Amino acid sequence: MIQVDDALSIIAENSAKMPVKKIKVGKSLGFVLAEAIYSPIDMPPFRQSAMDGYAFVHSELSRFSVISSSQAGDYSNLKLEKNEAIRIFTGAYVPDDADTVVMQEHTTVTGDKVQIDILPDSFANVRNKGEQIEKGQLVLEKNTIITPAAIGFFACLGITQIKVYSKPKVAILVTGNELVRAGKKLPQGKIYESNSVMLEAALKEIGIKKTIVFRVKDSLKATTKMIESCLDQFDVVLISGGISVGDYDFVKEALLQNGVEELFYKINQKPGKPLFFGKKEKKLVFALPGNPASSLTCFYVYGLPALKKRLGFTDIHLPKMNRKITTAFQNKTGKTLFLKGFYDDDCVTVLESQSSAMLNTFAVANCFVYVPYTIVNVQEKQEIKIIPFN
Amino acid sequence: MIQVDDALSIIAENSAKMPVKKIKVGKSLGFVLAEAIYSPIDMPPFRQSAMDGYAFVHSELSRFSVISSSQAGDYSNLKLEKNEAIRIFTGAYVPDDADTVVMQEHTTVTGDKVQIDILPDSFANVRNKGEQIEKGQLVLEKNTIITPAAIGFFACLGITQIKVYSKPKVAILVTGNELVRAGKKLPQGKIYESNSVMLEAALKEIGIKKTIVFRVKDSLKATTKMIESCLDQFDVVLISGGISVGDYDFVKEALLQNGVEELFYKINQKPGKPLFFGKKEKKLVFALPGNPASSLTCFYVYGLPALKKRLGFTDIHLPKMNRKITTAFQNKTGKTLFLKGFYDDDCVTVLESQSSAMLNTFAVANCFVYVPYTIVNVQEKQEIKIIPFN
Repeated sequence: MIQVDDALSIIAENSAKMPVKKIKVGKSLGFVLAEAIYSPIDMPPFRQSAMDGYAFVHSELSRFSVISSSQAGDYSNLKLEKNEAIRIFTGAYVPDDADTVVMQEHTTVTGDKVQIDILPDSFANVRNKGEQIEKGQLVLEKNTIITPAAIGFFACLGITQIKVYSKPKVAILVTGNELVRAGKKLPQGKIYESNSVMLEAALKEIGIKKTIVFRVKDSLKATTKMIESCLDQFDVVLISGGISVGDYDFVKEALLQNGVEELFYKINQKPGKPLFFGKKEKKLVFALPGNPASSLTCFYVYGLPALKKRLGFTDIHLPKMNRKITTAFQNKTGKTLFLKGFYDDDCVTVLESQSSAMLNTFAVANCFVYVPYTIVNVQEKQEIKIIPFN
Repeated sequence: MIQVDDALSIIAENSAKMPVKKIKVGKSLGFVLAEAIYSPIDMPPFRQSAMDGYAFVHSELSRFSVISSSQAGDYSNLKLEKNEAIRIFTGAYVPDDADTVVMQEHTTVTGDKVQIDILPDSFANVRNKGEQIEKGQLVLEKNTIITPAAIGFFACLGITQIKVYSKPKVAILVTGNELVRAGKKLPQGKIYESNSVMLEAALKEIGIKKTIVFRVKDSLKATTKMIESCLDQFDVVLISGGISVGDYDFVKEALLQNGVEELFYKINQKPGKPLFFGKKEKKLVFALPGNPASSLTCFYVYGLPALKKRLGFTDIHLPKMNRKITTAFQNKTGKTLFLKGFYDDDCVTVLESQSSAMLNTFAVANCFVYVPYTIVNVQEKQEIKIIPFN
């Protein structure tokens, strides 16, 4: 049995980044960039007016003939005499001859003549070519998480494809003779299976959408065969149940028979003690406890960081924050606790009913209250670490 | 021109919840529950062993004949004599005759006899029927956001369908003759269009996936027609560009011609001043500034809350937090600023280059630094509000 921090280190060390692939920018939300990107163009790609107004050659003159008009998207590069100006709009091409734009609010127009009432400085209101980014300049560094802003940034530079770390294919393998799928009649002695749909949803939250669920009866032979097939086709295998020490818990034996290396088994924590983590080459296996709340706790605390590492993320662990606890609390278990809590701007309350078999508290909680095994007494109003998850 | 807080109030008041629809629990992540849900079953549905051990009738006896075995999923309801016990595993049906389970670690087994070494209390290690939730009891309240835990909770009670607020259909309408789609050659005077793909990604982040993008040239007739068609088919219309006061900005006029009620136009802020918000019946229209960074700022600050309200969320605005600012700062604009910043546990730094035309800073920022128009001087290390967005 190991401590929580050791388990987290082992996960970080043993989770490898996925292979790199090229994808369309429009499909890249939430991926991590696997290459540095450099700009293929100058931006702006030409000298651009920053105002609606008049483009002219800066001099002592203040009265001009308006010889043409240029709106955004036009390319009109007329030769301008010293006493000529063109009507211009924000974003439009500034003729090569012109060096300055005066905003329309600072002019008086009579017929085809424009009088400049307040003369701007030379070069005013003109965005230079490449002023914002030059061709060949760094756009975004390798390992940047791709956000809507990053996608917009790529698109405005004409970049359509980028290299990212691909998403791991994840299998969920559900064990347990007692389980019946929701929607069917519940025979005596059975319960509804909920971990598969719950874990699928938790995977969707980090953008892993095409999870496949397998189900196997409690037999060593069937479990071994199913694990072999999952290891063959998937990058990460999440197994639910069958990992305790009961006579019908075959998962660990089946994993070892498949050549999965045990990296840890059992963590000094509550809930979620009987967690198994192993790997075979780069493929990762989590055998999660069957109790729904334990299973989801282990997924958030351990499964998620492993998946984020595989996806190429640098910060992989759920971030912790400090909050004052609303009521005093004792931890006599000698274990690290992940309690379901509800926090606001100031405080956190440990919710009643922390059963690992049920999700009622989990469904209304918004954080774990994290109580390390070394802490026995927590006073009311004492600051304590929380781990937000919703 | 109105202030930021007034604009936010107007958005909250005018955004109506979407119609209710029934969906599968497995597809409900991120939706908001539009009904209270009550449990269709007792959970556990039968008296369940909480341990691997032996089920027996509690008495002064400590030695029993083991007459049968019951694993999770079995239904074995044998009649037990006072001196009989059955081997039982965690989650298994406890025979109606038995009242107590002793954990296997507290027994000694010889052949088909079991000796109880440490006698547990009566009723120990038996989870009662309906102990965690009873048939008819509240599962989750109306307006609960559906998380992975909520999905698991529904599934373990056999609930397969729930009523939620449906997702709004969103159209993105891009205006601007200067715009060329990424992947094509860039003619002189043109720039790449990036707002559509950026807004699509920002919509995906709140689970709105099937956005349709339309493009229209800068003409009043074409814009009016396109807006009519969008209002016809979509719940929310996001328009990019054409909302300033230039000679080629037709969006506002086209909206009014379509009977869209103006709820506000122009906010005392930077960037994103020329934002238009209107509605026609329950349909909402945002005309966002064309500059990419202004457009995304307005989407996060105003579009997102409107969409969250429509989706049924109660807390719709981006939450604010306090951070110490790393360098002193002056706001001489008289406007509320939404500056791109980067925060950590303690501090926030206002990033260089706050251009509203470019996304380079936005793509590496993780928050807005929120400076109300009433604040002129911000001292180094002073606490200031930030609005995290990544």
